[in-house]
Amino acid sequence: MELTEALYTTRAMRRVAPDPVPEEVVAAMMDAAVRAPSGGNSQNWRWMTVTAPDVKDALGPLYREAWQELQETIYAGRREAAEARGDESALQVMRSADWLAEHFEDVPLWVLAFSRNDPSGASIYPAVWNLMLAARGHGIGTCLTTVLGFLRGPQAFDVLGVPQDKGWTLSAAVSAGYPLGRWGLAKRAPAQHVTYAERWGEPVAWAVDEPLWNG
Amino acid sequence: MELTEALYTTRAMRRVAPDPVPEEVVAAMMDAAVRAPSGGNSQNWRWMTVTAPDVKDALGPLYREAWQELQETIYAGRREAAEARGDESALQVMRSADWLAEHFEDVPLWVLAFSRNDPSGASIYPAVWNLMLAARGHGIGTCLTTVLGFLRGPQAFDVLGVPQDKGWTLSAAVSAGYPLGRWGLAKRAPAQHVTYAERWGEPVAWAVDEPLWNG
Repeated sequence: MELTEALYTTRAMRRVAPDPVPEEVVAAMMDAAVRAPSGGNSQNWRWMTVTAPDVKDALGPLYREAWQELQETIYAGRREAAEARGDESALQVMRSADWLAEHFEDVPLWVLAFSRNDPSGASIYPAVWNLMLAARGHGIGTCLTTVLGFLRGPQAFDVLGVPQDKGWTLSAAVSAGYPLGRWGLAKRAPAQHVTYAERWGEPVAWAVDEPLWNG
Repeated sequence: MELTEALYTTRAMRRVAPDPVPEEVVAAMMDAAVRAPSGGNSQNWRWMTVTAPDVKDALGPLYREAWQELQETIYAGRREAAEARGDESALQVMRSADWLAEHFEDVPLWVLAFSRNDPSGASIYPAVWNLMLAARGHGIGTCLTTVLGFLRGPQAFDVLGVPQDKGWTLSAAVSAGYPLGRWGLAKRAPAQHVTYAERWGEPVAWAVDEPLWNG
């Protein structure tokens, strides 16, 4: 796959089929992940592939608890606000995220990313994103979620046998499977609306009115 | 460029020529950056392209202060340890990072990434990495640095006119220019050494003994 197509179409693909992700694709995803740079080339990461029903059965309820808690706290009012302004695009994202929580156990593969000594996340998320881009190249849809580690980290560590005292953080749980939806560009604010030149608030000289790749 | 080549060869490329990055390449880098997913599709980011000598002249000393402070605190002893064990690869990375600090003002383009409401970094670093991969596709070398925001954030905000009270964080300063070095694979621990299956410590069934892409 061409790089630009991958960069432009690797959107959150939450609805996936239960068919397993082939082992050689999993290996390719993980090999791509570890190619990413990390601060001081520390590679201070561990990864875990979860496909076993009993592990998913134990994590699923924790994920749904976390997702529910997020709705009631940080995300409170978002759904109502989106409904009030008739923002169908935002509502679709929320329904899709609901689907993922409800179907946690049906997702064939979850890849968990653990990091430590990485307070900003600058060392783990390029690797996570490499994994997701490589998956895209193999036709696998993924979604980067953080809610499990953020709101149920210690409980998830207990399920997975992760030591609680070694400084690890569950930075991401990435769902992966063959997509039920279709690939395509997601809607974004144009780059020139969010980019300044030289100083805050100064406009850039260029504009990208249509995405530079569109199939 | 093929996706896999980009994923495997976008290494930290700190030594770059002073030649400017063409405006259409900058636009392409920024357009690719904003394609990345962000939590709740919030796109809560701002970007700044810095090429002006007076701005670089003001940021360079701050960057060097921060880099020096990092050497004396969090990174203290690393250089001596690498020398003691004869780790030429680690020493090369350090010399290259020194070069970048010493030549801050000679780097033709710095792209600054600002984020807010993103404590984990999960929403900003995929976009930063998209930018760096897109740059690679155009033959531009980049390096993700965090030290300026981490250790001299408020001072950099003053230089750049960034409001101090709106919750923004300088998540990354990405250097960019035409490389003086050559592209190639960086050394990494094999994926199967850092990946577990189902539970912490359990080995995976696959192994990637040689990188799956190597030119």
